[in-house]
Parts: sequence; structure tokens; C-alpha cells
Amino acid sequence: MRDVAIIGVSQTKFGELWDKSFRDMITEAGMGAIQDANIEGAELEAMYVGNMSAGLFVQQEHIAALIADHAGLTPIPCARIEAACASGGLALRNGIMAVASGYHDIVISAGVEKMTDVVDPTPMIASASDQEWEAKQGVTFPSLYAMMARRHMYEYGTTREQLATFSVINHANASKNPRAQFPMEITVEQVLNSTMVADPLRLLDCSPVSDGAAAVILCPAEDARKYTDTPIYVKASAQASGTIALHDRKSLTTIDATVNAARTAYNMAKMEPKDIGAVEVHDCFSINGLLAVEDLGFVEKGKGGVAIEEGMTQIDGEIPVNPSGGLKARGHPLGATGIAQTAEIVWQLRGEAGKRQIDGLEIGMTHNIGGTGGTAAVHIFSL
Amino acid sequence: MRDVAIIGVSQTKFGELWDKSFRDMITEAGMGAIQDANIEGAELEAMYVGNMSAGLFVQQEHIAALIADHAGLTPIPCARIEAACASGGLALRNGIMAVASGYHDIVISAGVEKMTDVVDPTPMIASASDQEWEAKQGVTFPSLYAMMARRHMYEYGTTREQLATFSVINHANASKNPRAQFPMEITVEQVLNSTMVADPLRLLDCSPVSDGAAAVILCPAEDARKYTDTPIYVKASAQASGTIALHDRKSLTTIDATVNAARTAYNMAKMEPKDIGAVEVHDCFSINGLLAVEDLGFVEKGKGGVAIEEGMTQIDGEIPVNPSGGLKARGHPLGATGIAQTAEIVWQLRGEAGKRQIDGLEIGMTHNIGGTGGTAAVHIFSL
Repeated sequence: MRDVAIIGVSQTKFGELWDKSFRDMITEAGMGAIQDANIEGAELEAMYVGNMSAGLFVQQEHIAALIADHAGLTPIPCARIEAACASGGLALRNGIMAVASGYHDIVISAGVEKMTDVVDPTPMIASASDQEWEAKQGVTFPSLYAMMARRHMYEYGTTREQLATFSVINHANASKNPRAQFPMEITVEQVLNSTMVADPLRLLDCSPVSDGAAAVILCPAEDARKYTDTPIYVKASAQASGTIALHDRKSLTTIDATVNAARTAYNMAKMEPKDIGAVEVHDCFSINGLLAVEDLGFVEKGKGGVAIEEGMTQIDGEIPVNPSGGLKARGHPLGATGIAQTAEIVWQLRGEAGKRQIDGLEIGMTHNIGGTGGTAAVHIFSL
Repeated sequence: MRDVAIIGVSQTKFGELWDKSFRDMITEAGMGAIQDANIEGAELEAMYVGNMSAGLFVQQEHIAALIADHAGLTPIPCARIEAACASGGLALRNGIMAVASGYHDIVISAGVEKMTDVVDPTPMIASASDQEWEAKQGVTFPSLYAMMARRHMYEYGTTREQLATFSVINHANASKNPRAQFPMEITVEQVLNSTMVADPLRLLDCSPVSDGAAAVILCPAEDARKYTDTPIYVKASAQASGTIALHDRKSLTTIDATVNAARTAYNMAKMEPKDIGAVEVHDCFSINGLLAVEDLGFVEKGKGGVAIEEGMTQIDGEIPVNPSGGLKARGHPLGATGIAQTAEIVWQLRGEAGKRQIDGLEIGMTHNIGGTGGTAAVHIFSL
């Protein structure tokens, strides 16, 4: 198996991008990554695109060919990878395998979602849950995560203020991220007074509806220094599945897919949680950020709320979480998120993260979830 | 790069399977392949599922996790791969890479589509074309392929009877395939008198709307004889993209993606068209079967019609095409097709194809197309 490195990354600004089409956004991200890697488009040998539901959002399947055509990349092989909101993480993982296998040398893994061309994205997002057992019975994603939050509060005494603090830290980081959808600070009080969505989750606990795209360029680790002075090495690429429906779980407060993917990742990298210097976690709702801090092994189960309250996850804390602003404040264009997380960790490792730079970071992690944890992808990167 | 072998295959009967749900079909196919490979489900290390549009057909994304959950396969990594009607071929290719890379040893690549739960599948199928430039202007898939057929008739003198003969041969083969949707013979006259769909294509030129699933089990070639006495070896796994919209092509009568994928496949396998003993081609419409015979190099461009008329592609001809009955008569559940083609070639190579068995086959090929040729996957297999 060949080792793999990242030599280029890019992310469009996330937001309600009404002036940019699906194909505009992904082409912008791809061009950005190509320029960042200092290569020509003609050097790309294959493309993987993470996208959850262009079919439901813009009535377009077959998007990988569409993008290759629009971007002038034909005839390279290209595939769309889908695992709901973890589609980006899986596009990265399959790109890594394409290089590791020797099938291809230079590969682009990208992600894109255009969510604001529909009146109500709720049914599209709900298609990430078990349609027959959950969505068609009227359950929405905020309500699924609300049940997990309520149970965590009941079992471990987690407070509303602790959940709110996760959003507050995200926004503090996003205020220094020019690509973030909501680059402004908020307070715990604002979270607690925001509109109720699904009790106990309020509007400012929820990631937004976003348009956006991101891309990374991969190559064999042994070739990386031909292209860049700061290659970032893939130390682990791990993935696990879990029950798609919430009612099938042993516990509502542990996401088994995260636990399993993290264990595999730590084994691959021969590392432990204490070796990770920063992490981008999948906080589609504040409770999911809190669960990730626990399930990735940074604190014991049940201690996430207190750790967040005490500042452990702040950008200058013991384990900085979501320096980008996370899904909550950077934005969450579903299929793009796993790639945008990767771009952030790459910028942080290179020392290119501007005002939100973490000092002396050497090892970073990304954590990307599909649905309520039917899929989890965990990657570890190093200088 | 590790060589890869196929140790198990399975296909559900294709048809209008109103008594079987999406998850029933794919689980049936997966169980069949597991039994055929003589392994336990717990030995599977990863899953790839080809599926074009469960989002539009059954409002369900995140299907790989859904299937893993339903089939009791969690926590293995699983991903949906989508490239319209080539989704199955790409699920196979990504499974091959997962084994070749060393990431996983035993991998299941499957395909599934549930198309008959909607009143009219035309808009879902049209999402494989360029939505903005084609589908939203009113162009449907039969009409796109009709333009290609008309142009081939104009440029090369291809006749209606020659196109009809492609369907007639498919049905003759399908009549010996118990898994086929339409296991009955038809005549050229019946094709010529069937309902007009998009001039010059008639109903019996068109593949049907189908439900169904198929699966294959892959492992490192060096381990294959632990599981089976008749491993089938992957000699080439190739893929190419082409323009998704028809108006961007230099020619309407050549599918560049097929030509490019075939060239790559022949190079990988160190073979030429004359080395191939049988081929399953992507005849979503009779004209596409004819184009494949040309674009894969079995005859010169423009000579496909005459070759078909003269019997070259019959099961006892020079290059048997679609011994299974092809998309036309075996059926075409979009995401399942590339895997079903693979299953057929595996059965033929093993000598397990019953009344439709090709004598002494040693090398077989599959050819799977997305849309009108935005994607093509070509695989070569040997005993």
C-alpha cells in the first residue's frame, strides 16, 4: 500500500450562494485546489466527488461526469460517492485508495452541495435517515438529534448552557474565517433565547442550510515534495457504518460508527487521542459536536459537557475543536463538509490559517458523520 | 498493486418486483453472493453499492448504511457509488481498488435499483442527462439515443432491421436465462411493428423499467483458491468520462468514453479485441448495443449493423454479445446492471450458464455506460 499526501486544498465561501450554480461552485473549488497544488488540470488522473443529493436538490444525478465535462477534465475516470453528510469524507477516502492502490497518481477528491434552490430542504435532508422507519413517520433531523441531546442531559447531567457553549466557541472561531457562512461571534444567552427547533435544540444549536464546495489534491507521499514544500501526510483513513435508524441502538448517547472509525484510525496511525493536536468534528447539531468529543476519546463518556464549559475545546485549549467554525458557523453544504474539514486541517498544519491559527500544530484529525451516525469517517493527518 | 479475483456472484430475478422492497432485493443479492463464495457474512470487510437514484425513486439517500444495517453487516465501511446507469460498474471498480490497495481483503460490490415504485420514471432517468441543457428542455433518454440512431443510419446506411436484430438476439439469449425479466423470443417483425417511442426507436428497441439487484465478492487473487476452485481473475478495470450533453460531441455515432475506457482496459490486460471471447454490452437501446460493438473494437466504425445482421454477435458467433439477454431482455435496474453483467461473465467463465453456455470461454468483458456516454466502465475477466 502506497502512502498518500495532500498537496492542494481549496474551499469556496459557504453560504446562500444564489448567484452560483452547482457546477460553478464545484469548478471554483477544483480550480482553487489545482492552483494551490501548483499543477495543471491535465495532470489529474481521477476524480471523486462527495455529494449527498443533487438528485433531490437540483434534479441532477450523474454529477461526476457533469463536473468533468464542465471543468474540461474528460476523459478521466470520475465517480460520485454518497453517504449522506459523510459523502465528502468518503470521497476523500476513495481518492486515497485510488492512489494507495497504484491505479492513479494524482487524484482530486471534492465535495459539493447546492441546498438553497428548493423551498424546503427538510425532506431532502430527511432522506439520510431511515425513510420507512423514521422520515415517513414525521421525524426530522433536528428531532432525531434532540432525542439524543435530551437523553445525554438525562444520563449525564449535561446542561443547556454546555450545549450552547459548543456553538459559541464555533462562532468565535468562524469570526476569524473569511470562508465561513456566519463569521460573527454569538453569546450563550443568544443561543438560549433563539427560536426553539426541536426541544431542547434551538436555532443556534443547528448547522445552517448551505451552498458550497471544497476540493483536495492527493498524490503518492514519495512524490509530494515535487509539488509543494509543505506536503500533508495521510496517517489514517478510517470508516465505519452503524445503525441508520435511531431505535436500533443500544444507546442514544454513543455513536458506534464514530467509536469504531476512531479506533481503526488510531490503530492505523499508531496514535492515541492525546497525540491529536486539533480536530474538526461533525457538529450538525451542538449535541453531535459534544458526542464527537467523547466518542473520539478526548474525554470519558458523559464528560463532554463539562469539558466544553471549562474551555478544553477552545482554540487555545487542550484539544482545539473546529478551528474553522465547524458545521454550525462555517456552514454545512452536506457533501462538501468532509472535504472542507480536511482543507481546514491542512491549512492549520501548514500554518496558513491566519487569525485562527493554532500554534505549532503537528497532527490533526477530521470526523465526518452521515445521518445520525449510520456512517462515520475519521482521518488523521500530519506534517 | 495486488491482483484481484471474484469468488462469488449473485443476481435476483429482474422485473417488476412489486412484492420486494429496495432493501429486500439488495439483501437477497448479497446473501446469494455470500453463499456462492462459501464465506460468512462476518468475513466481509467493506461494501460498495452502485445505485443511480434511490433518492428520486424511493426518497432514500444514505443507502449503503441502510443496507449494512438491514443486512447485519455493521460496522464495516460501506459507500454508495453513483454514475447514473454505470453505477454498478463503478461499484465494482472501487471494490477492486479497495482490495488492490490492501485496505481490505474481502469486499462485496453490489448494485440495486427499485424503479417501479413511481408512476413515471422518465424524470428520474432523465436526471442522468445534463438537466439544464437537455432534460429541462424536454429531451428524454429515448430521444437522445434516437438522434444517435438516426445519425448512424444516415452516416453508415445502418438499417432499421439491423437495429431490430440486436433486440432479437438479446431475447433469444434471455429465453434461456431464468433470471431475465423478459425470457421470451421475439422476431424482427415484432420489433418493427412495436409502438414508436422516439423515431426511429420503437418499444422493442428499448430496455425496460426494472427492479433488481446483483452482487459480487472480491478478494486478493493469491487467496482466491482458499474459497473456490473456479476463481475468476480481474485482468482489467478501466473507466473514462465523456461529455454528458450530446450537443458537445464531435460525433453522435461514437461514444468517446467507451473508446477510452476500452483502450485503457486492453492496455491493462495486454490484450486486443480478438482475445475477448464474449462481452456483455450496455444496450439500454438497440443503437447503444450496436455502438458498443464498434467502439469496443470488435468491428470497424460503421460496420456494426452489418455484423449484427450476419450473426457475428449471436451466442455461437465470432463474438457472442449479451449471452444474458442484455439490458433489453434481462432487464435494466439501473445501478444493478454493471454488477449483473459481471455475474453473467463469471457464470459463463465457470461453465455455469446452463442452456445459454458459451463453449470453452476463457476471457470475457463487460461494458457499462452512464447516461448517453458521460461515463463508461470496461472490465476484462479471465479463468
